[in-house]
Amino acid sequence: MNNNNKITARSEDYSKWYLDVIEAADLAEYGPVKGTMIIKPYGYAIWENIKNALDKKIKSTGHQNMYFPLLIPKSFFNKEASHVEGFAKECAVVTHYRLKNDGQGNIVVDESAKLEEELIIRPTSETIINNSFAQWVKSWRDLPVLINQWANVMRWEMRTRPFLRTSEFLWQEGHTCHISKSEAEKEAKKMLRVYVDLVKNKLAMDVVSGKKSDSEKFAGALHTYTIEAMMQDGKALQSGTSHNLGQNFAKAFDIKFLDKENNFQYVWQTSWGMSTRIIGGLIMTHSDDKGLVLPPEIAPIKVVVIPILKEKEDNTEVLNFVKKLKLGVRESEIDTRNNISTGVKYNEWEKKGVPIRLEVGQREMDNNSVMLVCRHNSSKTLVKINDLAKTIKHELKDMQAELYQKALDFRIQHTKTVDTWEEFVKEIDNNNFVLAHWDGTAETENKIKEETKGTIRCLPFDQKIEKGFCVYSKKPSKQRVLFAKAY
Amino acid sequence: MNNNNKITARSEDYSKWYLDVIEAADLAEYGPVKGTMIIKPYGYAIWENIKNALDKKIKSTGHQNMYFPLLIPKSFFNKEASHVEGFAKECAVVTHYRLKNDGQGNIVVDESAKLEEELIIRPTSETIINNSFAQWVKSWRDLPVLINQWANVMRWEMRTRPFLRTSEFLWQEGHTCHISKSEAEKEAKKMLRVYVDLVKNKLAMDVVSGKKSDSEKFAGALHTYTIEAMMQDGKALQSGTSHNLGQNFAKAFDIKFLDKENNFQYVWQTSWGMSTRIIGGLIMTHSDDKGLVLPPEIAPIKVVVIPILKEKEDNTEVLNFVKKLKLGVRESEIDTRNNISTGVKYNEWEKKGVPIRLEVGQREMDNNSVMLVCRHNSSKTLVKINDLAKTIKHELKDMQAELYQKALDFRIQHTKTVDTWEEFVKEIDNNNFVLAHWDGTAETENKIKEETKGTIRCLPFDQKIEKGFCVYSKKPSKQRVLFAKAY
Repeated sequence: MNNNNKITARSEDYSKWYLDVIEAADLAEYGPVKGTMIIKPYGYAIWENIKNALDKKIKSTGHQNMYFPLLIPKSFFNKEASHVEGFAKECAVVTHYRLKNDGQGNIVVDESAKLEEELIIRPTSETIINNSFAQWVKSWRDLPVLINQWANVMRWEMRTRPFLRTSEFLWQEGHTCHISKSEAEKEAKKMLRVYVDLVKNKLAMDVVSGKKSDSEKFAGALHTYTIEAMMQDGKALQSGTSHNLGQNFAKAFDIKFLDKENNFQYVWQTSWGMSTRIIGGLIMTHSDDKGLVLPPEIAPIKVVVIPILKEKEDNTEVLNFVKKLKLGVRESEIDTRNNISTGVKYNEWEKKGVPIRLEVGQREMDNNSVMLVCRHNSSKTLVKINDLAKTIKHELKDMQAELYQKALDFRIQHTKTVDTWEEFVKEIDNNNFVLAHWDGTAETENKIKEETKGTIRCLPFDQKIEKGFCVYSKKPSKQRVLFAKAY
Repeated sequence: MNNNNKITARSEDYSKWYLDVIEAADLAEYGPVKGTMIIKPYGYAIWENIKNALDKKIKSTGHQNMYFPLLIPKSFFNKEASHVEGFAKECAVVTHYRLKNDGQGNIVVDESAKLEEELIIRPTSETIINNSFAQWVKSWRDLPVLINQWANVMRWEMRTRPFLRTSEFLWQEGHTCHISKSEAEKEAKKMLRVYVDLVKNKLAMDVVSGKKSDSEKFAGALHTYTIEAMMQDGKALQSGTSHNLGQNFAKAFDIKFLDKENNFQYVWQTSWGMSTRIIGGLIMTHSDDKGLVLPPEIAPIKVVVIPILKEKEDNTEVLNFVKKLKLGVRESEIDTRNNISTGVKYNEWEKKGVPIRLEVGQREMDNNSVMLVCRHNSSKTLVKINDLAKTIKHELKDMQAELYQKALDFRIQHTKTVDTWEEFVKEIDNNNFVLAHWDGTAETENKIKEETKGTIRCLPFDQKIEKGFCVYSKKPSKQRVLFAKAY
């Protein structure tokens, strides 16, 4: 744990604050290769909690996990034209399968071990999975195919930010085949709701759900659905996507089934993914100038107990007292280190975002109590030890609800509905979410992006159909869409 | 699920039998790139059960999970001389980070995107992890470092066998740093015991624990400890290893700490791993000519209920009857498919190794009973439905114990203690484990391997120190060691 790093204030340098929070909480650090990240134990414990919660939901909606190879033959990328456009540019390419000693003490690539066909480290697995689906799906009885994979993927990146943008990242990718267009559409939307449920109820994040514009959709998809979260700097973070792939990959990979009337049909497909990027969103939604703030539902340690130890004195009484406390939560720790001052300990656990801190000194013991401090609002309550488990349970529940409410309020407060270009430019400039009319063309979308850095985050589902005129081109528009600057 | 594949008998072609069992149970299949494997949902569910059980043990022994990058700079392999000898030969090498369209519709490697230093897909992570340990460990207070990683690794292979030998495989790798030689030694042995506990109590496999000979130890280790299981063909399968690395990597990567007397010391290290290979061992320990046999503790489905349906008749009664059965186990399935005959269903679930099958037809309903069939010994018992949950619980427990006992008996029966070269050759030829004296030299070890294909599996821990003369060289020997043919 880092003791002495001071966290930059958000108001001073938001981007530096983000990196400081990660370092102070010891969540991750850069790896030796540019673009890579080492996820440290505390960061990985958060990922495990997210993963376990999401995995349960994926299984309970009928999907099975499996595992496909990391390396994809280059030729597979040639099959779906728009997919290769979107992904081939940023691939790690394996060309050889052996190193050798050059006789002068150096390890060099063995040129005699050159692959006939280069292999690509998966940037996403549609191509290799659909290659198998084509062999597995034969009849309507084989449908639906509902599978998911937890894996590492790689997209070459030069501008790295821990969790938000790294060349290698961890994720789950769901891939499904269906008998009809409507069933695929239902599946794509169902899995987006699974993501909404996860981020809302576990991560206490608020998101806007909607459809991506054509220029922002997944390479090869018919439609992409997305959840967009607002960070504390007002920028949007795409936090999970679900794609209705239509029959694009089915046609490219020849995935056909014999229907009940004995006719060959192409399957209808979806794919959907959520990655370690969500940890970046979690950090930027809740944390403050003192460091990380974690919603109790996802915190690896929910309660930390800090006995106030006296230097060079016998601390047996307080140590025995804290050991006997009934907390009612499994995820707790007692900090008995005697080489660090109590103040530094408070500071350290604050930086790690542990939801509840219990302070126990002579005064508390005399009152048969402990001092309960909530990380998210610094509230302090003296709690009788007989009420402790009950109080902790309530406080954690309240905290979870309050963090979500705060995120929701913040988003609503920073979402502006505008009708003029002047207002639009101003509100995007002020880092707000902006609901505005758009004429539906990529041309306008691009011009707005160039002139303001505002991009269409989504066509929100909950937006009522309301005719109007494009904020940029003044042409007719069918509904307002959500614009924002984005990560 | 495959309906119509016949499984080759073990006596006819053991190697073919193994592949047939995997195909019939739908555990895995070859991937599109030579050497790779797709782990299918049923196979992956077994891996998840193994992983969850092992992960719990790794955490309860004080280790934390984390995640290091997939790609390792080539130069890192130069640092530990014996390590590079062991691993550099079989590495996948990333040389470029972009593809491009050649203008004629082909996707080609973009030569302008050549990496300055080639990157290696991790064959194991000692080098990249120790590079970080060198930055993290400063004082005796930072020790021990106890970490683990679940990851995919890659070692180029041409002779593939699903689970047993694939270029990419899934595993966990533990990496630790300690203050003293004795603490590292204790850790290495403790983690081997964790593996023994897992394979014995969950996988019902019997193993011989011991130390590897110097020629068989991990590249870079001081000592390698191993668990060796006996397959039904009498061959050994190395099923998990734990390495006492001494200070070899600490010196290569300069991992030093300031001890309590303010002197710099190199740390003492261990690493240990278990992989998807263990699934191959699980298959070859228990399965039979009818297909897969799974110990209940690791079976994704413990009980399958098969209502005997009548074609073109109303099956409501039997379907309602089976739905109301109280099985007492969560991992169960009711097979209500009406397009497949009951006989084919029995056959399919046998191939999948489901421990208990419940058959329910008119006769059983009339008796308020179900027919309980155990997969491992084909025993049939008519069980009153009120006794069902209790009976299932007992049967599963007995089955787990019986499978282990059978594996243990088989190993003891096929382990021979020999003193002459003639006997040695004969017993190795008969595919037995052979306990024999060895003079301790790599030269003798190699000659024995060349002449008999028998390799030293380990110097067993439970072998009493007993002086004798080498079965090959007749030179003095301190203890018997375990020889066998191996996978």
